[in-house]
Amino acid sequence: MIKVGIVGGTGYTGVELLRLLVLHPEVTLQVITSRADAGTRVDQMFPSLRGLVDLLFVHPDEAHLEQCDAVFFATPNGIAMQQTRALLEAGVRVIDLAADFRLQDIASWEAWYGMTHACPDLVAEAVYGLPEVNREQIKTARLIANPGCYPTAVQLGFFPLLEAGVIEAGSLIADAKSGVSGAGRKAEIPALFAEAGDNFKAYGVAGHRHLPEIKQGLARVSGNGVGLTFVPHLTPLIRGIHATLYGKLTRDVDLQALFEARYADEPFVDVMPAGSHPETRSVRGSNRCRIAVHRPQGGDTVVVLSVIDNLVKGAAGQAVQNLNIMFDFPEAMALNIVPLLP
Amino acid sequence: MIKVGIVGGTGYTGVELLRLLVLHPEVTLQVITSRADAGTRVDQMFPSLRGLVDLLFVHPDEAHLEQCDAVFFATPNGIAMQQTRALLEAGVRVIDLAADFRLQDIASWEAWYGMTHACPDLVAEAVYGLPEVNREQIKTARLIANPGCYPTAVQLGFFPLLEAGVIEAGSLIADAKSGVSGAGRKAEIPALFAEAGDNFKAYGVAGHRHLPEIKQGLARVSGNGVGLTFVPHLTPLIRGIHATLYGKLTRDVDLQALFEARYADEPFVDVMPAGSHPETRSVRGSNRCRIAVHRPQGGDTVVVLSVIDNLVKGAAGQAVQNLNIMFDFPEAMALNIVPLLP
Amino acid sequence: MIKVGIVGGTGYTGVELLRLLVLHPEVTLQVITSRADAGTRVDQMFPSLRGLVDLLFVHPDEAHLEQCDAVFFATPNGIAMQQTRALLEAGVRVIDLAADFRLQDIASWEAWYGMTHACPDLVAEAVYGLPEVNREQIKTARLIANPGCYPTAVQLGFFPLLEAGVIEAGSLIADAKSGVSGAGRKAEIPALFAEAGDNFKAYGVAGHRHLPEIKQGLARVSGNGVGLTFVPHLTPLIRGIHATLYGKLTRDVDLQALFEARYADEPFVDVMPAGSHPETRSVRGSNRCRIAVHRPQGGDTVVVLSVIDNLVKGAAGQAVQNLNIMFDFPEAMALNIVPLLP
Amino acid sequence: MIKVGIVGGTGYTGVELLRLLVLHPEVTLQVITSRADAGTRVDQMFPSLRGLVDLLFVHPDEAHLEQCDAVFFATPNGIAMQQTRALLEAGVRVIDLAADFRLQDIASWEAWYGMTHACPDLVAEAVYGLPEVNREQIKTARLIANPGCYPTAVQLGFFPLLEAGVIEAGSLIADAKSGVSGAGRKAEIPALFAEAGDNFKAYGVAGHRHLPEIKQGLARVSGNGVGLTFVPHLTPLIRGIHATLYGKLTRDVDLQALFEARYADEPFVDVMPAGSHPETRSVRGSNRCRIAVHRPQGGDTVVVLSVIDNLVKGAAGQAVQNLNIMFDFPEAMALNIVPLLP
Repeated sequence: MIKVGIVGGTGYTGVELLRLLVLHPEVTLQVITSRADAGTRVDQMFPSLRGLVDLLFVHPDEAHLEQCDAVFFATPNGIAMQQTRALLEAGVRVIDLAADFRLQDIASWEAWYGMTHACPDLVAEAVYGLPEVNREQIKTARLIANPGCYPTAVQLGFFPLLEAGVIEAGSLIADAKSGVSGAGRKAEIPALFAEAGDNFKAYGVAGHRHLPEIKQGLARVSGNGVGLTFVPHLTPLIRGIHATLYGKLTRDVDLQALFEARYADEPFVDVMPAGSHPETRSVRGSNRCRIAVHRPQGGDTVVVLSVIDNLVKGAAGQAVQNLNIMFDFPEAMALNIVPLLP
Repeated sequence: MIKVGIVGGTGYTGVELLRLLVLHPEVTLQVITSRADAGTRVDQMFPSLRGLVDLLFVHPDEAHLEQCDAVFFATPNGIAMQQTRALLEAGVRVIDLAADFRLQDIASWEAWYGMTHACPDLVAEAVYGLPEVNREQIKTARLIANPGCYPTAVQLGFFPLLEAGVIEAGSLIADAKSGVSGAGRKAEIPALFAEAGDNFKAYGVAGHRHLPEIKQGLARVSGNGVGLTFVPHLTPLIRGIHATLYGKLTRDVDLQALFEARYADEPFVDVMPAGSHPETRSVRGSNRCRIAVHRPQGGDTVVVLSVIDNLVKGAAGQAVQNLNIMFDFPEAMALNIVPLLP
Repeated sequence: MIKVGIVGGTGYTGVELLRLLVLHPEVTLQVITSRADAGTRVDQMFPSLRGLVDLLFVHPDEAHLEQCDAVFFATPNGIAMQQTRALLEAGVRVIDLAADFRLQDIASWEAWYGMTHACPDLVAEAVYGLPEVNREQIKTARLIANPGCYPTAVQLGFFPLLEAGVIEAGSLIADAKSGVSGAGRKAEIPALFAEAGDNFKAYGVAGHRHLPEIKQGLARVSGNGVGLTFVPHLTPLIRGIHATLYGKLTRDVDLQALFEARYADEPFVDVMPAGSHPETRSVRGSNRCRIAVHRPQGGDTVVVLSVIDNLVKGAAGQAVQNLNIMFDFPEAMALNIVPLLP
Repeated sequence: MIKVGIVGGTGYTGVELLRLLVLHPEVTLQVITSRADAGTRVDQMFPSLRGLVDLLFVHPDEAHLEQCDAVFFATPNGIAMQQTRALLEAGVRVIDLAADFRLQDIASWEAWYGMTHACPDLVAEAVYGLPEVNREQIKTARLIANPGCYPTAVQLGFFPLLEAGVIEAGSLIADAKSGVSGAGRKAEIPALFAEAGDNFKAYGVAGHRHLPEIKQGLARVSGNGVGLTFVPHLTPLIRGIHATLYGKLTRDVDLQALFEARYADEPFVDVMPAGSHPETRSVRGSNRCRIAVHRPQGGDTVVVLSVIDNLVKGAAGQAVQNLNIMFDFPEAMALNIVPLLP
């Protein structure tokens, strides 16, 4: 049993970590922090956890996180980078679900996130926690930069094509749609039911913070730079991301076989049969990514459909997957959840 | 043509007033105020109004509301009572869509709303703007207390029974369900899509501000006090209220005929055929209230089903209906809207 | 390990049984039948089960259900009664999720369900599978009538009050709201997204098949007949039932203590703290029923709020709970699921 | 006043035509047909029309459509082509909201729609009813092929770019998202609330019937053939289409000015300010198309966002717009509807 702490337990990634960890047989939930709600019972804020979590939110100053074996940051951007060094020095392994350690290019990070980075040296050490490309490094990492939700869905969809070098890397398009929980549990008007319900819109077409993260990840596997147009949309789902990816084929290839081979050994990536259209609900509540690959009318445009639950494979589930890899637990431990359909 | 001003134009009742008034042939929209968004184009905040409204939000201090013929307050509770006296003295007629003038019992108002009332004498003058009981007084009123959304749906459902004296007035039950827009356009966590979506709950069972308003209205027609249990619920609709009303019959009566006779001349109350179940969408976007009355298994419990669009008959539409009555326009002017179904 | 069969695996209760049983450590899924979809892979129809279920739907005639230890009927009403006798004679224990064995009064059943009952003698033997009242009989039952969804939520809410004799049994009101999955996975216009979405309505006010079932169950504990007005509503949820129950108190009592004592030992009934408003999402995907009891304004009306997931505690989860009790497995086996919130 | 008939009045385009036409000051609704529901009151099926429509559905054989001035076909594909010739010969002008007359290439039509065309000669005569390109021909047309919903949104978005010749016509991408009402009022499982709710998926990636229609329309303005990848998606809206269009710029151009100039005189196309993200709800219930054009990061990919209400500008509203043009009524007559927001 390892002792685990969660910093920032009142957001959606926080409560999702709780949902997964309360049934994790190798984890003791040691502490959950909240600055605003210290002293409140966790199951008062989240009645879904009644009978399962017997903890109160603790003020960060009194959390004694250094006594944990691992700490998750489910905080806004810019918090983890302030506290990570002390934890690492105390021997704690850190998984940051925010963006603080995702971009290796510090100048780019500071431009997109609008703050000065507190510990560029730790960024260099951090391992990008996408097991499908970094499993070996994750095993021994002290510090994990847990990927963003859009980047997870988009990268897993493009990897087989870029690794095989069968598409033009310079003209990729990712048309992505996210459920509203991706905006977090924050009181903001655009995320109200009466605003986001029965409504569909694009946003951030001029530039979204996940763009450099995706490009960095794709560039790694493509061998040289990629050109990417990334258009995120808000769709009236609670959970779920659907990425529709477009690329121009440079040579003929058996796309279905390519994808199946690439992910044959991945426990959480499901390549669906040819002709499939994965639905977001088919992964609701689970850590799976389901992918289908199409070549409409036999033309030279490849279309990849990739779905995840943004709070699980796009956040908390992937973080637990990383924890399992880091501590040498079975990779699917506590993640063996059947999607909730309907 | 009359000149009309709206105080507090950025909430849902404000934008709904705009939707109705831009096509009102006797109204010139003179000014719309917003403290926070002064200087912003109205159609930038509400693109649905592009091409229809060519105004900017104006700071209340610069609004010159006294130059209007009528002013709507689409503000939080406690604002209208500060400004109404000056407007009335300037000859402006006032329709308050908030609760400031709804309760004749000032002590009760102050207890439920948690503030000291600024002008109890004006409360005494104010006319409760429910045309189905107060049409004559509305015609000459200077100041209208526009009813709340729940109170409109509940009172219209109970009136025929109480007026005819056929139910026990002491043991009424109103089980009411509201869409999320009833909470207003305010950044609050419980109204987020990811909170209120795919979720149903009761709230305010211990006591809701609309309870004394409903009881006051029902007591007027029943002749003596009423006993009412009122349980509001939040349902994942954007718009709509469905009130399910229960009463115990004290004598045999043709309920269908009773309701049809009561509302035969009402332009906005539709008594549906016996056996009907009105749907909230059947009034979506319109000023209608649809009602059906049932007597399950021929027992002594009467069940009334009453639906309205909370933003129209429950707020802005009723306010325009009151305006029409006050200024001797045809009562349905600008309200002849076909409900949006599906 | 016991061998389990499911008859009628393509509806929502069928796929929900699958979701629960695939992770049940004592169950081997032997066979799933479908007349219309025989030969189709289960995970082709329900991609959420990819990697978890490696079965094809089998035609009922070729299912060899008599080789199972237990068989679930997730079929329309009227099917189980045709096949149950043969299974019982073969030593198979049967859990019917439909209504065939729920009503002890055969004439009433035939009137409400519009068919002649095929085996009245088995109705007499059948145990009504509500563990909170019938746990002992369930242990040894050969045939379980799994309760309906509304009846589960309503009965659990009224039981403490009726058992203690503190309310008038003759004037009960149950105002119940159900998500759309309660209508089943049937191609019918009223259940379309464009019909049931953003819409709220009552239905079946004149009489609903769950009315006699609820009255039968309440009468058992009240000692004599009950009078019940039951009004079901359709609300735009996928899953969830919220029952709002009203009764008239006949004497003063500590309601909170009464409810807590009644359900203290029940693993799946959670009495929430005084003043709570249970949300349907707080039980989404789980077998829990959460209940809160209120006495508004200290009057003589008691209001009980009771929520379940209609597909779990209201159907498949309760069926698995019954299976666990029948086969002496831990009662919560395979039901230890954290609700999906948000 | 002209006399108008509707064939097939029980689907969503039928009821939407009714919603618009009941307030049309130059139209008398003469007859509405339904084979299955002949004899039923229209407002019994659609209570939203109570007090507005006093007609019964009439069997097609008794409809005397030849006495109308204009007839709308709101029928499944393949019906209008059977009845149009007789109507035209009787001097009736016909607007078909289905696909029978949309494709000039008969062989292609027969391949995509799986039937033999009954009157290829009439296809040659039919005018494609997209006023933004065909207004002059519509004025005198006897027979209008009313465009599909996706084709309307996609073509209006691409026209300015193709007409100006500033993008590669051979590699267009249209990633389109539709609300569920686009599937019609048909009892089919994939359109159930419990299937399409809280779910997002692509469909028809291999080929959708709107593909040849879009390509035909784009080819007309581009001067030569176009290459188009079209991926439709189903999103949990009731109404609304959002098309996200991608093209590769071939030369530098002021995109905002290009779009504004193109649609300056169009009453129903609104080019939004630079940087905008049109929302589907901003056109809910109205005949408007709102468009925004982006060039992310100043690269050579142009992104156009185009939204319509699929039942209005994508079907019934456009049909009424065509009627107005054909009969020389003001083009916006009966279409001056403020979108319903929220």
